[in-house]
Amino acid sequence: MHRFFIGADSFAGDQVTVGGATAGQITRVLRLKPGDRVVFLDNSGWEYETEIERIQRDTVAGRIVRKSLGAAEPAIHITLCQALIKADKIEFVIQKCTELGVKTFQPFGCARCVATMPSDEKMTRWQAIIREAAEQCGRSILPVLQPPVHFEDLCRPSVVASMILWERERTHGLSKLLANAPFLGATVLRVIVGPEGGFTEKEIGHARNAGIVPIGLGKRVLRTETAGLAAVSAIMFERGELG
Amino acid sequence: MHRFFIGADSFAGDQVTVGGATAGQITRVLRLKPGDRVVFLDNSGWEYETEIERIQRDTVAGRIVRKSLGAAEPAIHITLCQALIKADKIEFVIQKCTELGVKTFQPFGCARCVATMPSDEKMTRWQAIIREAAEQCGRSILPVLQPPVHFEDLCRPSVVASMILWERERTHGLSKLLANAPFLGATVLRVIVGPEGGFTEKEIGHARNAGIVPIGLGKRVLRTETAGLAAVSAIMFERGELG
Repeated sequence: MHRFFIGADSFAGDQVTVGGATAGQITRVLRLKPGDRVVFLDNSGWEYETEIERIQRDTVAGRIVRKSLGAAEPAIHITLCQALIKADKIEFVIQKCTELGVKTFQPFGCARCVATMPSDEKMTRWQAIIREAAEQCGRSILPVLQPPVHFEDLCRPSVVASMILWERERTHGLSKLLANAPFLGATVLRVIVGPEGGFTEKEIGHARNAGIVPIGLGKRVLRTETAGLAAVSAIMFERGELG
Repeated sequence: MHRFFIGADSFAGDQVTVGGATAGQITRVLRLKPGDRVVFLDNSGWEYETEIERIQRDTVAGRIVRKSLGAAEPAIHITLCQALIKADKIEFVIQKCTELGVKTFQPFGCARCVATMPSDEKMTRWQAIIREAAEQCGRSILPVLQPPVHFEDLCRPSVVASMILWERERTHGLSKLLANAPFLGATVLRVIVGPEGGFTEKEIGHARNAGIVPIGLGKRVLRTETAGLAAVSAIMFERGELG
């Protein structure tokens, strides 16, 4: 069943009314008809199975036939701090990691970033990618896209267990990290992934001072857009969130 | 240090001579000079650190200064059987899974494949993607790209422990699968990933009859190009190959 995140103001009792792009998607792209059912989501975690009743001009109205709590949100809250990288790569990371269950995206700039701080248009585009991926994979809460920050901001004192992926870290790996405090059983985690050119020694030093643990991802050097995905997949797997 | 897979006929004693695209890459793209070092690979698992000695027209000649066994190959042999999917997606899967350590790619066609059987040009392009990714991530043996087959061919009797990713499988997951025979400790594994539209019930039935285990990857429905990556990441992690 097709899923759509819509505004809370679209709901009134058991009635749902949507316009704009969502209505266009339902009528013109999917060509749904009265009697067909969709799932509407208000980003609260609830899912509203809704039967379409009326389609008028650019408005679709329906009646909620079932309300249930979404089951696809992972128990662990992973924040993926992703350095600004080339547009197609960061979009890829955002899309895939939404599917994999990341709950917060925190873009950041650092010394070796070639990509510039994203414009408002770009942030809107990333939001749209998150939304589409979240709808497609069955999530019931939209991952949050934080405004971009600088690397130093990530190194502020924090109680959140944080790791930074570093291709030159040969001693500490993900397996051991996840098996020990403060990562063991942590319900909130941060994974920090660098740009194409990697982190500087100085940045890794900063991170260490802030209690952020540099870890390697094995013997093969993963591209930045692969590294975050692999780390998130592995953490989700370790937590029983990947089947 | 830059790495290049080259033909075995480029080696003569401690001398290496390359022409063609590799020479062009070294001289015109990377602008390396005599005295610079690169790593040549003959796809045997050995790495040959080589000092460039002469650059003539379209030929680069050098002397091997160190020979060592590559350390980046994983101990586990994963064959990724990937249904034919849209060009950009399959290229993405091939690139990323080469980085992650897949040793064999087996493209296949099945009932819901929209993409057609790849032309020779496409196979050559995929080979190039494998090679480039393998060089970049530090591998010393090129993953093998098998000629495409049909789904039925994957269901022939085989002693290789095989799983098929199926979004409708809710009972069996990856964690339990990997913790039990024949997957537990297996040195050779097959992961079968379907097309955008998924597998048919009939195909899953065929697979089951052939001893291939359908598994789910958790509560979120992953796109086909995400599923293979996530599964390979998880398996590599479970085997200690992801740090």
